[in-house]
Amino acid sequence: MAKKITFNPYGLTIEVPEGENLLRAALAAGVHINASCGGEGVCGKCKILVEEGEVDSLPGGLLTNEEWDLGYRQACQTKVVSDVVVRIPPESLLDRRTLTRRRTGIGLRPSPIDLASLQEEGLYNPAFKKRCVKLSPPSLTDNVNDLARLEEGLARQHGVPNLTLDFFLLRKLARVMREQDFQVTATLDFSRRRFRSPHLVNVEPGDTTGRHYAVAVDIGTTTVWVQLLDLSKGEIIGHAADYNSQMSYGDDVITRIVYSQKEQGLQKLQKSVVGTINQVMHRLLKQHKLGVEEVSHMTVAANTTMTHLFYGIDPKYIRLAPYVPTAGSIPLLRARDLGLEMPEHVFVYSVSSVSSYVGGDIVSGVLASGLYKEPRLTLFIDIGTNGEIVIGNQQWMACAACSAGPAFEGGGIRFGMRATQGAIEEVSINPETFEPMLLTIGMAKPKGICGSGLINLLAALMDSGLVHPNGKFRDDLNTPRVRLGDSGREYVVAFAEDTQGGQDLVLSEADIDNLMRAKGAMFAGYVTLLESVGLHLQDLEQVILAGAFGNFVNIDNAIAIGLLPDLPRDRYQFVGNASLLGATLLAFSREMLDEERRVAEMMTNFELSETPGYMDQYIAALFLPHTQGEYFPSVSERLQAAKG
Amino acid sequence: MAKKITFNPYGLTIEVPEGENLLRAALAAGVHINASCGGEGVCGKCKILVEEGEVDSLPGGLLTNEEWDLGYRQACQTKVVSDVVVRIPPESLLDRRTLTRRRTGIGLRPSPIDLASLQEEGLYNPAFKKRCVKLSPPSLTDNVNDLARLEEGLARQHGVPNLTLDFFLLRKLARVMREQDFQVTATLDFSRRRFRSPHLVNVEPGDTTGRHYAVAVDIGTTTVWVQLLDLSKGEIIGHAADYNSQMSYGDDVITRIVYSQKEQGLQKLQKSVVGTINQVMHRLLKQHKLGVEEVSHMTVAANTTMTHLFYGIDPKYIRLAPYVPTAGSIPLLRARDLGLEMPEHVFVYSVSSVSSYVGGDIVSGVLASGLYKEPRLTLFIDIGTNGEIVIGNQQWMACAACSAGPAFEGGGIRFGMRATQGAIEEVSINPETFEPMLLTIGMAKPKGICGSGLINLLAALMDSGLVHPNGKFRDDLNTPRVRLGDSGREYVVAFAEDTQGGQDLVLSEADIDNLMRAKGAMFAGYVTLLESVGLHLQDLEQVILAGAFGNFVNIDNAIAIGLLPDLPRDRYQFVGNASLLGATLLAFSREMLDEERRVAEMMTNFELSETPGYMDQYIAALFLPHTQGEYFPSVSERLQAAKG
Repeated sequence: MAKKITFNPYGLTIEVPEGENLLRAALAAGVHINASCGGEGVCGKCKILVEEGEVDSLPGGLLTNEEWDLGYRQACQTKVVSDVVVRIPPESLLDRRTLTRRRTGIGLRPSPIDLASLQEEGLYNPAFKKRCVKLSPPSLTDNVNDLARLEEGLARQHGVPNLTLDFFLLRKLARVMREQDFQVTATLDFSRRRFRSPHLVNVEPGDTTGRHYAVAVDIGTTTVWVQLLDLSKGEIIGHAADYNSQMSYGDDVITRIVYSQKEQGLQKLQKSVVGTINQVMHRLLKQHKLGVEEVSHMTVAANTTMTHLFYGIDPKYIRLAPYVPTAGSIPLLRARDLGLEMPEHVFVYSVSSVSSYVGGDIVSGVLASGLYKEPRLTLFIDIGTNGEIVIGNQQWMACAACSAGPAFEGGGIRFGMRATQGAIEEVSINPETFEPMLLTIGMAKPKGICGSGLINLLAALMDSGLVHPNGKFRDDLNTPRVRLGDSGREYVVAFAEDTQGGQDLVLSEADIDNLMRAKGAMFAGYVTLLESVGLHLQDLEQVILAGAFGNFVNIDNAIAIGLLPDLPRDRYQFVGNASLLGATLLAFSREMLDEERRVAEMMTNFELSETPGYMDQYIAALFLPHTQGEYFPSVSERLQAAKG
Repeated sequence: MAKKITFNPYGLTIEVPEGENLLRAALAAGVHINASCGGEGVCGKCKILVEEGEVDSLPGGLLTNEEWDLGYRQACQTKVVSDVVVRIPPESLLDRRTLTRRRTGIGLRPSPIDLASLQEEGLYNPAFKKRCVKLSPPSLTDNVNDLARLEEGLARQHGVPNLTLDFFLLRKLARVMREQDFQVTATLDFSRRRFRSPHLVNVEPGDTTGRHYAVAVDIGTTTVWVQLLDLSKGEIIGHAADYNSQMSYGDDVITRIVYSQKEQGLQKLQKSVVGTINQVMHRLLKQHKLGVEEVSHMTVAANTTMTHLFYGIDPKYIRLAPYVPTAGSIPLLRARDLGLEMPEHVFVYSVSSVSSYVGGDIVSGVLASGLYKEPRLTLFIDIGTNGEIVIGNQQWMACAACSAGPAFEGGGIRFGMRATQGAIEEVSINPETFEPMLLTIGMAKPKGICGSGLINLLAALMDSGLVHPNGKFRDDLNTPRVRLGDSGREYVVAFAEDTQGGQDLVLSEADIDNLMRAKGAMFAGYVTLLESVGLHLQDLEQVILAGAFGNFVNIDNAIAIGLLPDLPRDRYQFVGNASLLGATLLAFSREMLDEERRVAEMMTNFELSETPGYMDQYIAALFLPHTQGEYFPSVSERLQAAKG
């Protein structure tokens, strides 16, 4: 049940679910409360006074008995039980003008895959189908071979003549046909467009038409996702993920490619990722009490390097100019030939890639997001280790990879880290005291800053006037939070005593420089790609954010730092893990399986480094938010508002 | 240079090649010379007198010096140097009337595969072709993936668009393309009729179009034959054979099937035959200094049980009524998946079978012999462990397996043996003294009697009047050669002192009974199959004998015992190992590769045991040559002539 929280002295009221944490609620409301320990309750700074209503709070050593009795609580240790009124103490007070900014980004959630609409559009049509036949047993006057008997039954009873078939089922055909007195369920693959007829891939005794599954896999550089699909009911049964165990050979695609060039390196990387898939897939199957032999179909989406490594194809030339992958489309391959613990009849269908740095994950995302059939001019963005962008609509698509580097995954930033326990994700800074309000993942003591946290932190530094548009800190302030460090000036996000590492957690000018290069590469990418086809940012009718990053980014802040274009917020959409979603759609829709290669071929790749104007755009974007303020009208307003 | 031999007192002259052995020449001429030791020179019975001309002879301990000086020689130890006149001594003399029978069968040799006529007919067109392309290296303004570059090159330079391809070549594509500066030879498979375009199976650096090979395999129950083919020149390079190492698990298909039902039996049999193929193939490749990676194509022909075992498919129901194999056509399978030591890109193409006992070896033979496009009514016979027959022409074909049993491979006959060293193959019997003239394989001491030897022996027993038409020996003769043994009466072919085993080598009435059942089953098969389609033996315009047996059988003698129909001898043809020949043709002719399944489907299988009239025909055929003498007019004449 929703509860109301009123924050005084602002008089601001918001609704939250019962049990919501007060610090988190304040952040969502845009109310600053000093908080250094990320929500763990050890810094004692986030004191608030409960004026009315009931809360559930842990007494800790950081409040005196007097404070407790007066109604003070640590916001991060307090849950809302009834409607409440709380007062922010003077030391946390923020000028009211900062309240003009509400986090419109927060609250956007990806739409789950919409099977109903797939069905409406006639696209729910799995390529793999089961058909049960009842055959008459052989006799001396009718002793055709078992296969011929089955084929005749399928032709007569289901109208599927001229089958082709997979060899391996022959090894069990005689037994299977006799096990339930010549009642047999055949699994047919209708996807192989190069064949003139369906392909018989499996036979099972009796009627098993009610049990039929597929597996969709998204192989990320960092994470492997597996989704389990029910082909007979058209449902996503569940999903699971784990770190790609290739991580131990390198964090990003470049280090993996380097490793692949060592003795047996490629083989090790191949086995490694297959090991992860096997492990996640079998965990999922076990959890749902399904036998792997009930799986008929496996679809895979991955970036170009991950695709090469998964298939054991040397990725060497992906890394060397002119950046040539071995292939865009990979032919069907028996899953077992890759070491996947799958039945013999399962083949791997993988999404085609466009180029070395616009891979099958992006094509899969384009399929999942519907961009390829979208009439509106759309910008599709996937920010991960690199940033890939696609611009276009149902008639054309241009795409490019931006060498954004891993800054938004925390790479190249001194205290950058992945979005795990202890990563600072939410930040606000008091513009007068420069004290921060931090919220970490898991509300643990801060350990570092994750990608979305970096964006939020940089935006907060801009809001509070601590950082100049050129990325340098103000040097005229008398605060211990800004000081000279090893890499120029730095802002102390958390002092040693509040951190997990026991050292000051800072963001330096060098870090900001890296962030600006990353966001500048992305922004220059949008503009260059649009200009290459004679269009402008304002022409964009829709922006689709894909990937885990897209799920967590605060749109306003990402626009504030110049990472995303300054468009009306309602043009933004999340699609979540669009790569996984695309792989799932391929398993549910034969038409999309047929179409993925066409979509990949439709996407024109631009090598930005070779595209006129890109370098100028890049240089122009190395500013907060941009040297050309007219690109970011709302940011100018926001900064004006923050200045008051 | 040919030399003339005149045999006195008959005045019979024949031509032989210089160096021909005199005993062998006498046999060919139908001149009887007593000879018990098979040609080894140890019995001393084959004495002849050289009256004129020059011979090359080894003096031995079995001729006295006086005899040598008078011009006597052992025929089996004597080679012809010039035209010669020789005299047969009285003890070997045979009534002249037996000379009416000339071995028309002998001298027939299979026609080697006729590539010239294949080419004339436009059928020389291997499904696998190499195409060399020179590509421009990639650059930043042209950095499509390697595969796309290759595909474009093949489309532009050779007009082969829309390739499909085999996954595994992708693993080496990048390296291969760069090894000789983007000059690449692609191997294309034009056979896959279900694809709309050629299938790219391999890539090699540089121009390798001059080196392109295929392997054709005939998997017999006893012997595995491998033929090495040059696809770029259209030549058979060589062949080699070895015993199927499955022999250690059983002599015939039934014992193999029984073994396959044991724990791991099928797997052992599969590995066993694959081991033989690997061994023979690699021996052949080494002998011709070819690398296995230069092989693109592998075709296999085998009987239905051998096919099942080769592919690891349970043959259980082949043996049990109603005799149902798992499949007629086996889909393409990567050779490596069977354990064959072949490059990854090689797939196995096997000839379709018709039924459990009319297998791919017979279909392959039908292809090789041209029966399927023959306008004349033809009988195709393959006698091995079982006898398979096909009757028909270009418009229809009927086929059946006769349960002839292994008698003609020496099975079920006390001294029966395979056609190896020491096996008696040629026999004649003096109708007055009943002394035999024996010639063994390798001219070694007799060890046993091979299949063709059994036919010749039985015919000689008939000619000499030793055996009645009912298969029983005359009991009114005073000769040590016919006596009562453990299994009724028996004829002593060689006494202990002349044999390798040191015991009397005999043919018993029980043995003759087995031979009569075997030949009866075959003959009843021809008649029944013909009658099933309203035809008669006399309608046959051609008889094709296939298989190793067909190579060595003496047609006259096989007709004499009732095994082959009594037709004008010029209607008979040998095709040798037609199964191997068919497999070779498939590799040389895409059209035949396309056609093999159609040909198999065109062949209507008859289960003789279920075909009306078969049992009556079988009973009627249990006679020498047959209860109905009118079937064998020439045999009656021959026996009359022999009686004098």
